[in-house]
Amino acid sequence: MKLQIAVLPGDGIGPEVTNQAIKVLKAIASEFDHTFKFKTADVGAVAIDNHNNPLPDATLKLCKSSDAILFGAIGHPKYDNDPSAKVRPEQGLLKLRKELELFANIRPVKAYESLLDKSPLKRHIIKGVDISIYRELTGGIYFGKKELSEDGNVASDLCEYSREEIERVAHLAFEAAQSRNNKVTLVDKANVLETSRLWRRVVTEIAKQYGDVELDFLFVDNAAMQMILNPKQFDVILTENMFGDIISDEASVIGGSIGLLASASVGKKYAMFEPVHGSFPQATNKNIANPVASILSAAMLLEHFELFSEAQLVKLAVEKSLKLHISTPDINSKYDNVSTSKVGDFIEDFI
Amino acid sequence: MKLQIAVLPGDGIGPEVTNQAIKVLKAIASEFDHTFKFKTADVGAVAIDNHNNPLPDATLKLCKSSDAILFGAIGHPKYDNDPSAKVRPEQGLLKLRKELELFANIRPVKAYESLLDKSPLKRHIIKGVDISIYRELTGGIYFGKKELSEDGNVASDLCEYSREEIERVAHLAFEAAQSRNNKVTLVDKANVLETSRLWRRVVTEIAKQYGDVELDFLFVDNAAMQMILNPKQFDVILTENMFGDIISDEASVIGGSIGLLASASVGKKYAMFEPVHGSFPQATNKNIANPVASILSAAMLLEHFELFSEAQLVKLAVEKSLKLHISTPDINSKYDNVSTSKVGDFIEDFI
Ligand SMILES: CC(C)[C@H](C(=O)O)[C@@H](O)C(=O)O
Ligand SMILES: CC(C)[C@H](C(=O)O)[C@@H](O)C(=O)O
Repeated sequence: MKLQIAVLPGDGIGPEVTNQAIKVLKAIASEFDHTFKFKTADVGAVAIDNHNNPLPDATLKLCKSSDAILFGAIGHPKYDNDPSAKVRPEQGLLKLRKELELFANIRPVKAYESLLDKSPLKRHIIKGVDISIYRELTGGIYFGKKELSEDGNVASDLCEYSREEIERVAHLAFEAAQSRNNKVTLVDKANVLETSRLWRRVVTEIAKQYGDVELDFLFVDNAAMQMILNPKQFDVILTENMFGDIISDEASVIGGSIGLLASASVGKKYAMFEPVHGSFPQATNKNIANPVASILSAAMLLEHFELFSEAQLVKLAVEKSLKLHISTPDINSKYDNVSTSKVGDFIEDFI
Repeated sequence: MKLQIAVLPGDGIGPEVTNQAIKVLKAIASEFDHTFKFKTADVGAVAIDNHNNPLPDATLKLCKSSDAILFGAIGHPKYDNDPSAKVRPEQGLLKLRKELELFANIRPVKAYESLLDKSPLKRHIIKGVDISIYRELTGGIYFGKKELSEDGNVASDLCEYSREEIERVAHLAFEAAQSRNNKVTLVDKANVLETSRLWRRVVTEIAKQYGDVELDFLFVDNAAMQMILNPKQFDVILTENMFGDIISDEASVIGGSIGLLASASVGKKYAMFEPVHGSFPQATNKNIANPVASILSAAMLLEHFELFSEAQLVKLAVEKSLKLHISTPDINSKYDNVSTSKVGDFIEDFI
């Protein structure tokens, strides 16, 4: 298979971890006789520095003319302290999602056997957890009208959803459930929000087309509690943009490190793959960042193109590295000095 | 001291647990020579059944003419399955908060030594946790304009905040921090929301009046993660309505049972005290519901009127009951058949 992959390394540890993912994809290409072409472009704080724009036109164009996008991370402390700044790195990511209509963000959450003891949660709570979170990514309060009164004393954000926006991500969630454990849990706040009541109505209707899938409802406050009390009850979680942001970061504690969590953001035409972790500025260029999330995002990219054996091999290599403690310090208390690139090397060699 | 206390037992286990709190308050009154007068009124599903109104005028009037309100719980499954119903129990609670201007919801989260092993979190993560959450309670997306298009295909909720709404709850949080560990963490989503940016600006300004308090910021997604990874980092958490709903329910896992968590909702004129748990319909009238949250809410009521020794005694009695395993089944694996009323009796006798 021939694929052109746009690489957007972004800020902080983004470039380092993305490099490992590229290494792994190249190994896969040579092993399975594919042609993967990589083209790099700026996004985030580095794009503001270079082009005064967190998402330069050239970057967007490259993304639109590529088959898939491999994303690193964005964010820089110099903007974090001033969230009112006119131009901010996050805008690049949000605009990319919107422009490419990446309406579904998919985050698998798994408890790896060899890492059960790394989690703040007790072993018996997380052993066997296997969740797939479907978060709506281009609607809701993220993209609704924002207003600030002239005197700067009143602010507002509008949360808006249409039936169509709910339907398209809901279908993906139900389809995923069919190839998993046949359960979808809709997380909402239908006892308070009008948008949540619309979600409940639309998703209930759609569920009728998936007779083999059980549909459950959970208020978001309760969901945040259940995620810790008994995460094994979940199979596929479906939710709106803001709740998905919170619940999926919370769920990352199950795996023992956010450095393991991959994600795919997909739409009708485009697809982007990125680690869940951020730019982790303190670790930049120290060769200590965990590349597994980025490498597993590459595996999701392979799955997206139905290269299932290839993806399987990457995941196997990752599991092997975890078992052998070829891991960065965030999850490795056994060996010192296993660097970002060493983990990448091991996984590359394994393939 | 003479106090008239409006009692709103509400639905499900509300009446049972509230009865224990009343018992405890009566014991305190006789021990310390106070006069507490209790007057009961309907709220929630039971008020819909009896008056076709989740917050009857008589109830609101009673609250307004009382010194404090002791609240049970609201919610009934017959409404949960239909969040689009015109009249719903939750409306009673939301209207009460709004009408009485209870703008700050205060939830203490503590890891009790004798319950450390009940939590899904590991002992070393939670040992010593002592957090006080200040949630804004009468603004934000809960009370903003809600719209549903005529064809029912587009819905919206407006999240709105004014400087004043932020200031008044922020002052309470900073004052609390001064009598605790001098740290306030503002939880927001300032990298996305205009309202969060207003929160950050206003709270940063207010912090200048409290030079001895350190102010920290955390994005809500990160906060949901940090609450589990390292809850000991928190002293006072300050946040808006929706985020507070999610984060405080999540934090309840630290204590080992939501059946232990008390809350106070306060405004300039009125104050209401209620357990964090809901109506728990499955347990209704089984005499198994944990009354501790309601009893600790009564302790918060006492503190509100600066009856500190009285409150201290109630808390001591609760800790004693926990240590001796005089506890309901949710946290008791040692003795069978310790009922709601037995726990109440023990605490009453202790006092
Ligand atoms: C960086 C931020 C805007 C983003 C979000 O909130 O969506 C991030 O937290 C994420 O989840 O990808
Ligand atoms: C019942 C519901 C409306 C309420 C809320 O969301 O505020 C509850 O979850 C709470 O936290 O008191």
